[in-house]
Amino acid sequence: MNKSPHSEEELLGLISRELPPPSEDVVNGIGDDCAVIRPSGKKGVMELLKTDALVEGIHFASDTPLIRIGWKALCRPLSDIAAMGGTPLHAVVTVAAPSSWGNTEWRALYRGLGKAAREFGVAIVGGETVRSPGPTFISVALTGAVAKQNLRLRSKAKPGDLICVTGKLGGSLKSGRHLRFQPRLAEGKWLAGEHGVTSMMDLSDGLGSDLPKLARASNCSFRIAPDSLPLHRGCSVKEGISDGEDYELLVTVTPTLWPALQGRWSKASPDLPLSPIGLMISPKEFPTILPRGFDHLTPLAS
Amino acid sequence: MNKSPHSEEELLGLISRELPPPSEDVVNGIGDDCAVIRPSGKKGVMELLKTDALVEGIHFASDTPLIRIGWKALCRPLSDIAAMGGTPLHAVVTVAAPSSWGNTEWRALYRGLGKAAREFGVAIVGGETVRSPGPTFISVALTGAVAKQNLRLRSKAKPGDLICVTGKLGGSLKSGRHLRFQPRLAEGKWLAGEHGVTSMMDLSDGLGSDLPKLARASNCSFRIAPDSLPLHRGCSVKEGISDGEDYELLVTVTPTLWPALQGRWSKASPDLPLSPIGLMISPKEFPTILPRGFDHLTPLAS
Repeated sequence: MNKSPHSEEELLGLISRELPPPSEDVVNGIGDDCAVIRPSGKKGVMELLKTDALVEGIHFASDTPLIRIGWKALCRPLSDIAAMGGTPLHAVVTVAAPSSWGNTEWRALYRGLGKAAREFGVAIVGGETVRSPGPTFISVALTGAVAKQNLRLRSKAKPGDLICVTGKLGGSLKSGRHLRFQPRLAEGKWLAGEHGVTSMMDLSDGLGSDLPKLARASNCSFRIAPDSLPLHRGCSVKEGISDGEDYELLVTVTPTLWPALQGRWSKASPDLPLSPIGLMISPKEFPTILPRGFDHLTPLAS
Repeated sequence: MNKSPHSEEELLGLISRELPPPSEDVVNGIGDDCAVIRPSGKKGVMELLKTDALVEGIHFASDTPLIRIGWKALCRPLSDIAAMGGTPLHAVVTVAAPSSWGNTEWRALYRGLGKAAREFGVAIVGGETVRSPGPTFISVALTGAVAKQNLRLRSKAKPGDLICVTGKLGGSLKSGRHLRFQPRLAEGKWLAGEHGVTSMMDLSDGLGSDLPKLARASNCSFRIAPDSLPLHRGCSVKEGISDGEDYELLVTVTPTLWPALQGRWSKASPDLPLSPIGLMISPKEFPTILPRGFDHLTPLAS
């Protein structure tokens, strides 16, 4: 019988078994926000590589303005570079579009891509355009770099670390924020320069799906205080946990270093909150029960 | 009125105008086989970046075995790295597949990708899997490296250069060769190490479409001797020119250096022909009339 993979992780396992073992220069392969490569001949710098795709009917509606789709297509992998503390460098873009597209559609899509490229200092150096007999499909591959000591993996959180998020959560799809979000590149770079930050990840699938991934990668469990979630106006705790597409940073911080870090953050980013929302704990101590049953979580003592 | 771009080049022009000017480290942006980047802190090495996509119904039929599609998906951008004289390094793979795919389909596709990765020393370091509401779509982004002095661009051919191709041309689709071709990585690297080789390009769209691109990039025209085309058994000259998907290398060579180069090639690659098929000429001298009217071409004096 031809079974289906039950989860993204099962699929990744299945895929990885068909591939040759990664070469020695691969610090981090399939499974983190970006692949991390130790380049030969460049000391102290790590290369980042990421690909991300948007499919019409899955990631955007057919009537979404193409300029917004272009923006989102580049900003999504930029958010992954941000989560590694990295600087984006070069992008290649593949577009499969219906043959009905004329100059207007191509221009609008690339105006959105170009806007994001200008804003975040990315060079779009190539790509491919093909005809799609079905939905529009946009794939962006992005390279980046990060100083070795600033690299933040999702596997380095420790029991006892504070869990924090940048910005606010929830309602991204219904508000249209998913089409105009700002990848947290400056913030990711700043946080990666802080000793106290042990791990980072970007919130694309939603806290309820992403935090368990970070926890598993770090062999930890976690406890969230639902009352402490920074929510967008009009959003419930459930929406803040489950909506997804927030593109905020999920960060773990050594608790003793938090007060000083919080002070510096307030000066560096006065307009963007960095909110503690819970604790990483021992994997034995507590099950990872998000996204279902989040209301059964024991609130943190405040 | 919403016009459509009349050609790939018109579309590239239109797209490029929407993008910020490339950063200083971009040696070659949109328009060659790969993007070429001069990395900071690495002397004498250029980075290569390429993306390439396969769409069901355009690049492969729905009943093509997935293991062959996986092979082709990685080998196509490998052929572009070959055309730059480069060594492939790392790949990320995006797959949009119907929700009906089970373990068998995923395994088969990745077995083909893995086979090519093993054969040509590529590390597949990440990617994305999404559901497609339409055709299957596979996009591969690939990085590579090339020694600065070995980089071969399609813009460096000169009038008087011999035009050569590796292997044989024609019939790739009808014979199924397009699903099991060998990217000419070893040959591309070898040729790039030769002084006499002035430019290289891979033949993906067919000689009749690709040679005019190389000629335009080099501000040359060309003259082909149809009788000299190395054809696969059963293929006509027209098929050798127009079929496409040959994935052989198109190479231009300084004529005075050709005899010695030819001798060395025969020893290095005794099983693969390297055939002179024509001459680059001054752009004033002769129009680039391939693929139409190739039978009106003046044969080379032999």
